[in-house]
Formats: sequence, structure tokens, C-alpha cells
Amino acid sequence: MRMSEKPNLLVTSSAVIGRFDSLRPYAKIYLLDELEEEELDRIAPLIDCVLVQTWWPDALTPERVSRMSRLRFIQSGMAGVNHIPFKHLGKRVMVSSNAGGFSVGVAEFALALMLAAAKRLVKLDYALRTDKFDPADWGRLFREVVVLKGRTLGILGYGGIGSEVGSLGRALGMNVIAFSRHPSKESGVQVFHGGEGLLRVLGKSDAIVVALPLSKLTIGLIGAAELAAMKTDAILVNVARAEIVEEEALYRHLVKFPQFTYATDVWQIKRGKETYSSRFPFLKLSNFIGTPHVAGGSAALTGEPGRAAVENLMLFLRGEAPRNVVDPSEYI
Amino acid sequence: MRMSEKPNLLVTSSAVIGRFDSLRPYAKIYLLDELEEEELDRIAPLIDCVLVQTWWPDALTPERVSRMSRLRFIQSGMAGVNHIPFKHLGKRVMVSSNAGGFSVGVAEFALALMLAAAKRLVKLDYALRTDKFDPADWGRLFREVVVLKGRTLGILGYGGIGSEVGSLGRALGMNVIAFSRHPSKESGVQVFHGGEGLLRVLGKSDAIVVALPLSKLTIGLIGAAELAAMKTDAILVNVARAEIVEEEALYRHLVKFPQFTYATDVWQIKRGKETYSSRFPFLKLSNFIGTPHVAGGSAALTGEPGRAAVENLMLFLRGEAPRNVVDPSEYI
Repeated sequence: MRMSEKPNLLVTSSAVIGRFDSLRPYAKIYLLDELEEEELDRIAPLIDCVLVQTWWPDALTPERVSRMSRLRFIQSGMAGVNHIPFKHLGKRVMVSSNAGGFSVGVAEFALALMLAAAKRLVKLDYALRTDKFDPADWGRLFREVVVLKGRTLGILGYGGIGSEVGSLGRALGMNVIAFSRHPSKESGVQVFHGGEGLLRVLGKSDAIVVALPLSKLTIGLIGAAELAAMKTDAILVNVARAEIVEEEALYRHLVKFPQFTYATDVWQIKRGKETYSSRFPFLKLSNFIGTPHVAGGSAALTGEPGRAAVENLMLFLRGEAPRNVVDPSEYI
Repeated sequence: MRMSEKPNLLVTSSAVIGRFDSLRPYAKIYLLDELEEEELDRIAPLIDCVLVQTWWPDALTPERVSRMSRLRFIQSGMAGVNHIPFKHLGKRVMVSSNAGGFSVGVAEFALALMLAAAKRLVKLDYALRTDKFDPADWGRLFREVVVLKGRTLGILGYGGIGSEVGSLGRALGMNVIAFSRHPSKESGVQVFHGGEGLLRVLGKSDAIVVALPLSKLTIGLIGAAELAAMKTDAILVNVARAEIVEEEALYRHLVKFPQFTYATDVWQIKRGKETYSSRFPFLKLSNFIGTPHVAGGSAALTGEPGRAAVENLMLFLRGEAPRNVVDPSEYI
């Protein structure tokens, strides 16, 4: 049974990424939100590809996924693909991340977090705002404020977001080094590999930006030993996924080293939901900066991630090789 | 009466800027802090030049200044010279600002404030920290977060700090324009002049950084009309002097336009002292970001401003023309 000469594309809805009209000449488009349960059951076996605009939708249960026998390609609207149910996908299903689409917006956000940490912005504003600032402390406090020029920026993961952070760091006059599996395309960036390489990047850096995908290779990558390898007044920025950093080890490290700062836009997924509370009271610490995962959403509003996802999906629909295809074995 | 073959240099003390040993071959150095009142009275008429490391010291009263008949040169350790008692100085006294020395550190701080404002960092962290963040607001809040690439950055005052902010803005992919009396040395920066030019820069810009000296030409430069010329969701960053922006007009503007953000490291001088409190409760506003004037101090710790001030003073001591000589008529 063929519903159309064109491939059947299922688009999971989102208020964030919008435009996929340009795909209509190449695919018959079904919007998940507009399908009744029965209709979805009926067309599931006919779907050739899926555009998952944000998180994997609850409606695409493992049972339904197992019946999507024609499925060959999933395009993630997000940079991360750890939400994709790899273990339920057939071997012939390719999954592409949208790593490049978010580069500019998320890199800017990482820079904002790094600078806010270096300048002790949040801590100083909070002290003034809550009337806890003692002018007698001024002489001590301004000494905590760091000028980044000439300091070392370590970037973990040198893909779309990481390399964009690298460009911004170099513009600040920072010495940029990276931890990556791939050699850098850019000159002037020293790239380290493997566990030993990771510890070297962490040890050399004054500020570290985590821009790695969350996979079984990176979950808990930054634990107690890695934190201990960092300078005690380093800045650790996370714009990737919270689970790359071990929560308990991080909390203990922040309490032990008040000059160490963790600045994050991403939070642990608990019971299937990203959540800002924790049994470790991070939000009570003055060396913690947190925002409620807004970097990606704001980047999406520029339209760039949507364009990038649609462009990559177009490659698949035209029979060309899509970019950013991930290795499922890293996620199962 | 000549105390030395070398010029007599009076150095006002500071914990911030340190090294002036390299001046010893060229000058006999007196440290203000080490002089008794009587001794100071005795040597005042013999002083040829003064290095004022931070604010003008109370000990150099108008009466004492009036007796410093040999005084020819004052080197400010700070970028601003509005604290120098120009009206008590003889016509032959040259005053140099230290505008260049702070460029890197203060420009970085301006970038940090601009990015914190654009990303709503302080507001979002505060909401999470005080348990006022409602996840239902997320969809509205991330839309307030601004990606700066492609937006317009207006810089008021395109000297050492301003042009450094310009470089950083261009690295972010912003369109940089400036308000300045001098034509820009850099290509790619459109420079506007005069009152009309100021309004055009304000009207075109998504973010505005104030990097002007405080003088009688710039005091209250940004009043109600200038604020009204700005986009209602613009970001106004002040790393210069608080008095360039009219306090009451600013407060009313922030209350009227909750999407407009003012981010400042500098505060009004009240009764001779920079003070964080005001009859306008800025620190209760979520569209205000404040830090207790730490940019200059942290920049000074890099040693760069100290080196720049000493180098310029050296030019004077060697009989060469010092740089950054200001026009006293702009300060009286």
C-alpha cells in the first residue's frame, strides 16, 4: 500500500521550529499533533522519515516505533540526540543530529555564562540586590574578577557549537585548546584525545566549556577525578547536557572550592523531565550560575536551526547523504 | 630651593596599581601616604608632577593645590579624569587620562554585561535562586533571550575602551556603529557626530555601550529624550560613569519598558562617594543589572593600566609629549 509517490514524512510538532514548507515538493507531510491515535496507528508502517523538532514525543511509543518498518531516517531538530529511542530502532534507520544549526546561538550563550562567571556578575548583582554587599569587602571582591585575555579556554567537544565557542574565545585573546575525537579544522587550536588528553585540557584551562553530545561515551565524563584535575578557581560552563557532569561530585567540589564556578543552562533529566531542583542545593551556592535551558530555544527563534534541520532532511529526501549522522552504538 | 636635579614626582598611593620603580632614574619620588602633613606642606611647592593612582586624594586640598606652583603634569591612573580638581589647577598644568590602559579589561566587562543582559542571565538565575521561576513561564521567557549576531551595537565614545568593545562586537557578528568626536581608525565602523548623530546611534542599536569620559560635555547626556530614542527592548551598558545617564529618567524608563535592560558597573557619586543606594530602587528591578565598580580594579590587577600610566609619565619626564592629554575646559 503506497499512500503517495513521495516519501511520507512525519513531523512532530513544536512551537519553536516552524518552517518546513520547502519540503512539500519532496515529501507527503503528516503532522503528529493533527493525527488521531487510530490514524497514527494506521500510517506508522508507511512513514519513511521523521522530523523530531524537540524531544522525542510520547505518542511514538516503543510499540509504535517497532511497527514503523519503512522508517529509514530521523532528523533531530535539537543538537542532542540522546532522547531518540535508539534501542527500538531498526538497524537501517539513520539518525542525524542538528549540531550545526544551534552553533551561533548556543556558543553566544556559553560565552555569556563564561563571562558572567569570570566577572562574578551574578554573585555581585545578587549581593547588591539582597543588600548583602559590604563595601568593606570590595577590595577582596574585585580581586576575584578575572580578565580572560591571555587565559586558557578548554573546549570539550569541538563540533559546531564548540568550534564557534573557540572563535569567540580567540577574539577575546584567549589561548584555545580542545578535547575532541576529531582533529581541528582550524589552525591555532591544539586538540587533545582520550582520557589522558581530557585531563590535560582540564588541568591547563582557566575556563572550560562542555559542548559534547550526551552519549554513553560522555555520560558522567566529568566526575570527581576530572574536577580535581581542574584549577581550583576554574570556570566550568555547560551548554550541552547536565548528565555529562556527575551531580554529586560537582556539588561537593563547589562547596570545597568557593572560587570554582559552575555555570549551566542544562539540568538533569529526572523522571523524564528536565528539572531545576536537586537533592544537592546548587541554587544556594554563590559559585553556581543557572538558567532554565533557554539557549537552544532562543537560538531556534533565529530560524537557523530550523533551516539547518530542513536542509539536511532535504538531502535525505533527494537521495543524497545527510550530514551529522550519529553512531547508534554510542547511544544504546 | 631645589631638592634634586631630577623632577619631583608625588605618587598618591593605591593598593591597585603598583609598579613605578622604573621611574626612579627620571624622578625623585615622594609617596603621599608616607608624608606627614607638615612635610607635605613643605614639598607641595616643589612637586613637578603627580601620579594619581585612583581617585584624587583628600590630602591634596584646593589650598595645597594652589601652592603647587611648579606643578606641570598630572597622570591619572584611572581612565576617567573627572575627579581631578581642574578649577584649582594653574593653566600650565597638563592632565593625562589613562584611557588606553583599561581598554581590554573594561571592554571585556562591558561585553559580559551586554551578554548577561541579552541572555537574561541575572534575571533567570535570580528567579531560579529565589524559587520564583514558574516552568509555565518558560515558553515566554526564552523568547526574551536575544541572539546578538546580526544585531546592531552602538558604542558611545570610541576611544581605547570603546574601540576594544567594537572589536569584540564584530567578533560576535554584530553590526558596530559609534558616536564619537573623532573619525574611527577602523574600517567597518560607521561613526556619528553631534546631537543628531547621538540620536541616530541610539535609535539604530539593539545594544548600546557607554564608554565616554565624564565631562561637562557628557554629564546627563542620556536623558529622557535619548532613552525615548532607543528601541524599547534595547540594552544599555554603562562602564564609564553613572552621571552620563540621568538617574530619574532612567528609572522611569526601566519601569515603563520591562524589556529594556540597563546593566552598569558604575554608580552615582553622592556626597563625594560612589554609592549603590538611590532614592530610585533600581536594585528591585529585574531589568537592571549592577556590579559594584569592579571592572577597572580587576583590569588594574593585570598590570596593564599601571604600565600604561608609568609609560606615559615617562614621556613627560623625558621631555617628550605625553599622550591622552585632556582639554581642561571640558571639565570646568
